[in-house]
Amino acid sequence: MTQSTSKAQPLQNDDLNQDQPHVLSIPVAESQPDRAPHSYERWLLAKLLRMTGAPPVRFRLWNGEEVEPEETTPEFTLCLSDPKALYQLVSNPNLAFGDLYSSGRLQIEGHLPDLMTSLYRAVHQAKQRWPKWLETLWRNHNPRSTSVTDAKENIHHHYDLGNEFYRLWLDEAEMQYTCAYYEKADLTLEQAQLAKLEHVCRKLCLKPGQTVVEAGCGWGGLARYMAREYGVKVHAYNISKEQLAYAREEARRQQLDHLIDYVEDDYRNIEGQYDAFVSVGMLEHVGKENYAEFGEIIKRSLKPDGMALVHSIGRNRPMLMNAWIEKRIFPGAYPPSIGEFMAVCEAGEFSVLDVENLRLHYAHTLEDWFTRFQNHEDRVTELYDEHFTRAWRLYLAGSMAAFRAGGLQLFQVVFTHGDNNSLPSNRHHLYTKPAAPEKP
Amino acid sequence: MTQSTSKAQPLQNDDLNQDQPHVLSIPVAESQPDRAPHSYERWLLAKLLRMTGAPPVRFRLWNGEEVEPEETTPEFTLCLSDPKALYQLVSNPNLAFGDLYSSGRLQIEGHLPDLMTSLYRAVHQAKQRWPKWLETLWRNHNPRSTSVTDAKENIHHHYDLGNEFYRLWLDEAEMQYTCAYYEKADLTLEQAQLAKLEHVCRKLCLKPGQTVVEAGCGWGGLARYMAREYGVKVHAYNISKEQLAYAREEARRQQLDHLIDYVEDDYRNIEGQYDAFVSVGMLEHVGKENYAEFGEIIKRSLKPDGMALVHSIGRNRPMLMNAWIEKRIFPGAYPPSIGEFMAVCEAGEFSVLDVENLRLHYAHTLEDWFTRFQNHEDRVTELYDEHFTRAWRLYLAGSMAAFRAGGLQLFQVVFTHGDNNSLPSNRHHLYTKPAAPEKP
Repeated sequence: MTQSTSKAQPLQNDDLNQDQPHVLSIPVAESQPDRAPHSYERWLLAKLLRMTGAPPVRFRLWNGEEVEPEETTPEFTLCLSDPKALYQLVSNPNLAFGDLYSSGRLQIEGHLPDLMTSLYRAVHQAKQRWPKWLETLWRNHNPRSTSVTDAKENIHHHYDLGNEFYRLWLDEAEMQYTCAYYEKADLTLEQAQLAKLEHVCRKLCLKPGQTVVEAGCGWGGLARYMAREYGVKVHAYNISKEQLAYAREEARRQQLDHLIDYVEDDYRNIEGQYDAFVSVGMLEHVGKENYAEFGEIIKRSLKPDGMALVHSIGRNRPMLMNAWIEKRIFPGAYPPSIGEFMAVCEAGEFSVLDVENLRLHYAHTLEDWFTRFQNHEDRVTELYDEHFTRAWRLYLAGSMAAFRAGGLQLFQVVFTHGDNNSLPSNRHHLYTKPAAPEKP
Repeated sequence: MTQSTSKAQPLQNDDLNQDQPHVLSIPVAESQPDRAPHSYERWLLAKLLRMTGAPPVRFRLWNGEEVEPEETTPEFTLCLSDPKALYQLVSNPNLAFGDLYSSGRLQIEGHLPDLMTSLYRAVHQAKQRWPKWLETLWRNHNPRSTSVTDAKENIHHHYDLGNEFYRLWLDEAEMQYTCAYYEKADLTLEQAQLAKLEHVCRKLCLKPGQTVVEAGCGWGGLARYMAREYGVKVHAYNISKEQLAYAREEARRQQLDHLIDYVEDDYRNIEGQYDAFVSVGMLEHVGKENYAEFGEIIKRSLKPDGMALVHSIGRNRPMLMNAWIEKRIFPGAYPPSIGEFMAVCEAGEFSVLDVENLRLHYAHTLEDWFTRFQNHEDRVTELYDEHFTRAWRLYLAGSMAAFRAGGLQLFQVVFTHGDNNSLPSNRHHLYTKPAAPEKP
């Protein structure tokens, strides 16, 4: 593992969002109080269950007493350690659920991903009947700024947690921290991640000798794949120091460093013109107020017959990011609807050629990550602490659930200049042979 | 040809849009005046050429005098028959170009589709530098209403011109008046239209015994293809009497009438729930103020695991329809950007699975239509008159040019309910074998 003195401190961001009064500070575990719950506390939880669409969930309170759902048979039990936890959950469930779970004040009996899927499905239905005051009370906050300066902080917070941590549960092929492509359901994570890289390259119609610019390159796997398999030259931008250290080392090891320039800089400083522009899993961090600028950057970076691909988590309609994820896991993150995404393409006067939604592929990817993560929880706790391990367990399980329940989508959007007529005549070239290698 | 007493009268819509003062009435040809052009008239035309981006065009005036472009070598000559034509063209070129061409007061030397492509490309560039007053002066008008009552008028105007007319230049396979799919460049129009139908069916994942509802079925070709090739039952809606008469007759001839119910009604009156919802080339007539309602109609008409496909002409960014096309050819028409299109999907809480842009396929389709149309111009003039023939020649050539130059796009959008997890795992099934039949 690359030891970096600037390694991000996990979950110590209480100073963030202090101007947003509904954002709680991270709760500290309390000793279990011995008082009995009040009747209105039981009433509040029953009300919470109704307002969240009667998920198959019971509550167990700090004294062992239970609150059962009215119309469903409970499959999961949520155990609250203290009265304050109850009030935090009821007043701001989007944020408090994660904070309470991470700190151990909310314990869960039952399969975590299945519980989260049930919750998302129930809430999605129930939401449409919420009174205005409840919508306002439970509203997720706006994502924080993604300016050049703040973006550094945001990215550092998540991606500089240490390469050893990510190596524990990401694929061993190319350290991909984005949706894999399970063109067949029985692919390994490694095969599916390589298939994703191949699928992206085919969509970009890469040819040997071409040049590519990549915005947000993670640990550099796509850049290496493109250089290795397609013989193209890549300029890959990133502002995560830990990821770049790994990317450069790995490119040297694979003797690809003459083809790849990993640039430590913001995507807004991309220079030059390229045959292809690619960005996999960065748009989520761009912030929708910057989409038009992003579109203009792509426009000026793309040769007249160049192809662009942007791969991003998205939504079926505009919706704020879950408060806990935005505050604790992905500061500044916002997954756009296709309509919002189009601000990028319209600003660049692009013609959208192809949109593919890989939602269930991301659910599958997260299933694989979650399994590997669970197998290494002891090591994660050694590296950080129990709080961190529980937070990441919830984040992975919750994300899997969101892709399963339809709360999140995964869009790959291919586009080109509006007047470019050098287009592939159809999409047959994406499917002439399997995208996945036979062996991982 | 089905003789119908209610057959639409071509191009006799001067009563339309009278509340829009910038919309001219159809100009009547004048005898060529013998006066010499004034110097400011030559200046106006030179200015027009500059403001439209210096296309390779010269003007020839009624006395034979010519106005040459400043920086380009002219490839085309536009001959103006009288001074009034000059003023009409300069004050409202979007509408007047078509009207003057149709009436013969603007004659063109050179290949019409190439001229139109040159014009669109030049104007697209030049537009960005137009002063506000010019943008306002040359602004296209808003499309007319597409309410249930007005939609009948709009559709009657275009689609009830008489089946013989459309049979002269549409494909002989299934009378498709929408973009074909040239999966190989050398397909005939007939093969490419059948390939389009097959491509649509594959995207809908049709299975025998399923039910499909079609909104806006044209001459019924897709419904017959689905019934014949996939063994599904189809309810196909249309409000064009001429088209329905043909559709029903042809279904009987092919002995498919037990599988197809052609319904003369507005899409807003669709009833029942179906395995698939399909609409090819109708969204252009829906009007964007009705997109949310359209989305809700699709939502209530689609079974929980149903698939929907909407195929429509579109834009790279929101933009009004060309005034002449909207006024003379397609009343009420509006091709949406993808962002605008998403109002349909968001209202239905749909998950978009696939967007494909077939822009150059439409240019190719129009090339085939234009060639056939030109081969039958004498018959068209016999059926209607010279004015009509010239108008349709321009409409077909101009549309071909718009798809070539990137002013128009063709989107096929596949979507399903947001919580439907019965999805094809990838798009391989679209490409396992050719979509086109070997013989037309």
